[in-house]
Amino acid sequence: MNLPHLIDLDDLQVAQWEKLIMLAGEISKKPSDYFGRLSGKIMATLFYEPSTRTQMSFQTAMLRLGGEVIGFDNPQNSSVAKGESLKDTVKIMSGYADILVIRHPYEGSAKAASLYASCPVINAGDGGHLHPTQTLTDLVTLKQEKGRLTNLTIGLCGDLKNGRTVHSLLKAMVKFKGNRFVLISTEELRIPSYIRDILQANGCPFEEVFSLEEAIGELDVLYMTRIQKERFSSEEEYKRQNSIYTLDEKKLERAKLDMKIMHPLPRVDEIADAVDTDPRAIYFKQAAYGIYARMALILMLFDGSLPATAIPKPRTGGFSCLNLHCITQTEKYLPNLYKGSGDMLECEYCSQRILI
Amino acid sequence: MNLPHLIDLDDLQVAQWEKLIMLAGEISKKPSDYFGRLSGKIMATLFYEPSTRTQMSFQTAMLRLGGEVIGFDNPQNSSVAKGESLKDTVKIMSGYADILVIRHPYEGSAKAASLYASCPVINAGDGGHLHPTQTLTDLVTLKQEKGRLTNLTIGLCGDLKNGRTVHSLLKAMVKFKGNRFVLISTEELRIPSYIRDILQANGCPFEEVFSLEEAIGELDVLYMTRIQKERFSSEEEYKRQNSIYTLDEKKLERAKLDMKIMHPLPRVDEIADAVDTDPRAIYFKQAAYGIYARMALILMLFDGSLPATAIPKPRTGGFSCLNLHCITQTEKYLPNLYKGSGDMLECEYCSQRILI
Amino acid sequence: MNLPHLIDLDDLQVAQWEKLIMLAGEISKKPSDYFGRLSGKIMATLFYEPSTRTQMSFQTAMLRLGGEVIGFDNPQNSSVAKGESLKDTVKIMSGYADILVIRHPYEGSAKAASLYASCPVINAGDGGHLHPTQTLTDLVTLKQEKGRLTNLTIGLCGDLKNGRTVHSLLKAMVKFKGNRFVLISTEELRIPSYIRDILQANGCPFEEVFSLEEAIGELDVLYMTRIQKERFSSEEEYKRQNSIYTLDEKKLERAKLDMKIMHPLPRVDEIADAVDTDPRAIYFKQAAYGIYARMALILMLFDGSLPATAIPKPRTGGFSCLNLHCITQTEKYLPNLYKGSGDMLECEYCSQRILI
Repeated sequence: MNLPHLIDLDDLQVAQWEKLIMLAGEISKKPSDYFGRLSGKIMATLFYEPSTRTQMSFQTAMLRLGGEVIGFDNPQNSSVAKGESLKDTVKIMSGYADILVIRHPYEGSAKAASLYASCPVINAGDGGHLHPTQTLTDLVTLKQEKGRLTNLTIGLCGDLKNGRTVHSLLKAMVKFKGNRFVLISTEELRIPSYIRDILQANGCPFEEVFSLEEAIGELDVLYMTRIQKERFSSEEEYKRQNSIYTLDEKKLERAKLDMKIMHPLPRVDEIADAVDTDPRAIYFKQAAYGIYARMALILMLFDGSLPATAIPKPRTGGFSCLNLHCITQTEKYLPNLYKGSGDMLECEYCSQRILI
Repeated sequence: MNLPHLIDLDDLQVAQWEKLIMLAGEISKKPSDYFGRLSGKIMATLFYEPSTRTQMSFQTAMLRLGGEVIGFDNPQNSSVAKGESLKDTVKIMSGYADILVIRHPYEGSAKAASLYASCPVINAGDGGHLHPTQTLTDLVTLKQEKGRLTNLTIGLCGDLKNGRTVHSLLKAMVKFKGNRFVLISTEELRIPSYIRDILQANGCPFEEVFSLEEAIGELDVLYMTRIQKERFSSEEEYKRQNSIYTLDEKKLERAKLDMKIMHPLPRVDEIADAVDTDPRAIYFKQAAYGIYARMALILMLFDGSLPATAIPKPRTGGFSCLNLHCITQTEKYLPNLYKGSGDMLECEYCSQRILI
Repeated sequence: MNLPHLIDLDDLQVAQWEKLIMLAGEISKKPSDYFGRLSGKIMATLFYEPSTRTQMSFQTAMLRLGGEVIGFDNPQNSSVAKGESLKDTVKIMSGYADILVIRHPYEGSAKAASLYASCPVINAGDGGHLHPTQTLTDLVTLKQEKGRLTNLTIGLCGDLKNGRTVHSLLKAMVKFKGNRFVLISTEELRIPSYIRDILQANGCPFEEVFSLEEAIGELDVLYMTRIQKERFSSEEEYKRQNSIYTLDEKKLERAKLDMKIMHPLPRVDEIADAVDTDPRAIYFKQAAYGIYARMALILMLFDGSLPATAIPKPRTGGFSCLNLHCITQTEKYLPNLYKGSGDMLECEYCSQRILI
């Protein structure tokens, strides 16, 4: 069916992002004005892996609009355990609900779901691939707290190699003018080269540095991320580096007075507890903006102000995705969807590129 | 208390079935017209074994009527784990909610619950015994999609021995005139003899055949069911027979153009994926009719248009149910309820018959 | 923030208890009159240990007021499993919801949560420490069913040593005039000495007896509790004593005609099934009063008729709680809060007293 979905933020034009961001800002001023807008509508949250926080953020957004929520978070109790395909689950849940929110450990699963749904689908995380509402949340937060999405010097600190959140934010921010990035990490946790390519292709200045302390002074925004202990070569290495990347009051002394500290949360100990009361710390506010961002998205998916997502034409032969985490590995009935031509093809589900 | 419940479809008159089916049909035309009818009412779903799909269908039905839902699906987390009796749980939940939906692995549990509830009880599956809202869903689907419940040639295919759904549907359809049944299965998975007895007692023509391919041409309705792999004697036997009972495009070529394909879902591979786009495939619609059937049922339980369920008088002595899956095995306080006289008695909870 | 919370019933004046009890009584007459009062408001139930019954009682109360509910009951699926602190979870959930209900295995956790919440917090059980809404439920039940909270002879029977419910009820009832207590238990399960001290300090007459049968005749109220099998020295001891403390029809013959039987539920076999139909048995009603008590509490937390809970000033040095079940053991950032002076200090979180 020809329906609007949110699978990948890049499926939308930047002008549509701006509408979403503006609406979220409006909602944040008085959320209660939007209560009742979706009275009688039902959201189904299909969580093929548990993520209570994300599920609650969508539930809250729907309830604050006056809608209702059903869903599951443990496929072992559901028909999935009896061998039901993603397609069947989506088709049935489309008959129950008015909007689907899907989280799934396989990449491309949300795209796959959107092919069979008879209502809008929101991607709430498809493996390590995309999590567009987190990125939308970050954009809303930046806009609300800095007043603009342009001409910002943004520091990103921590595990830049594995952080889906960081990659998505960078890919989004290159679309706005005049932004500069300071990528703060160890050598082992550097940003992947394909992200550097994107920054360069878009003419965005960036530098890669080792020391948070040295970099912090020039930043308008500091985006902190969690470094998982197991990313380090040893316990000693962890302890040594951890202190370099922990934001504390001392390091904050060097920061601008209007610098804003963001974090996708949950944090463990990469931001010292004492920082929480600093007015520059906005990570808890950021979590609240996540509700308004999702409210704006849901509203615009319902009111027709977002365009129907294009469904690519299946091709025959010549391609099968090699990504072992791609949803096409387990759902064999999925049509053969890829784009590109010549030597370089890209899987429409998981975005994996393959050189033929 | 003297309350209407839905424990067994046979507790209602066929005229009442017809009212339910008609109301479900009305609701299916514009479900949103019914939103708000049960505003302020609460449904409690007491799921003593998880069945996410069934639980969600009831939740959806209640939410679409404007009501709210509480409940559990994992008795290990509840007071049940501390040794609370079914009676106590039901009495307490009756004080919380306005309608109870119970699913339980023991046969007769819903009947037992209805003895103690101070609000209507719906049976959402009591072991292998009854699942009346599935049967009601099938009747609503037949009525909506075939326009009638009479003079139909209905094929039932797959595991006819173990399928509670199939047995209930047959027992329901014998009450309507002019229906003929084609029972398609292997010798091992034949319909039980007590169902054949019912068909004969009601004067319903039926035949038992082996080949779906040969039978399909004469059917108005084909009701497919899942055959569990473990029902077969060997892996080879499974593979050989599975293809005989898989509905695919080739077999469909022999079917009437207005034959309808039903399935209680979830399916695994007994219907080929390619069949989904055939207009005769209505199994996903059937799932949606399940919502309307449940909405109709809930509405009629609340508005007084269904009669109070008769509570049989306890008898003393002489009988104790021998069915090891009967709820009377674990809930020892239950009154001694059976019907019949002379040599043949029937347990009022689980319907087990005992020859004295 | 300066907000009203319900952490400990003792944080409120008795006059405020009486307002709550009166409002709950009003609600019990026609609960549907209160539907819609909290339309658009969201409750978050943060259950760090599962307790389905308690969680459902709060959900029901909120839904009956027209509000909505989100929450978790299994921290393994939530950000807590990733190492998130109680503080962070509370700060984020405050941004989602309008009121928090917390249950946690550590003592003092609800107090700790209230320090960081930007909305009211209700304690739904913090380890073995407090469970104020259970006590409020008992007070509402007594007032509704006996007409007064004064001049009552109240028997408490069973495990008086370990029962948090019993301790809280006694501590509450000493505040009303003319009550007398009959404490019925084995020697091993006697009431703790600190409770006896409280009774004496408040000039409340009480006696400790062994036999339920002998004591029952003089009681206005009999509050039964569950004795866990593992509290007895042996299986024989359990069987012997169990019959002494089981309330059955025979023992009831000696009771006053207007005596009321209460029980916090779930029961196992300490009240015989046949007692349920005796008009003196009000334990299922008591469960329903729990809904009205919580509705009254939630309403009064929202409408400003309860005072902001005082936040004690942190002190420096000299004290760290020795209670291994105190929340300060695991949440190291918590400020150092204790009261008292001189030799005797008391932890503001878990109420543990320490002689310096």
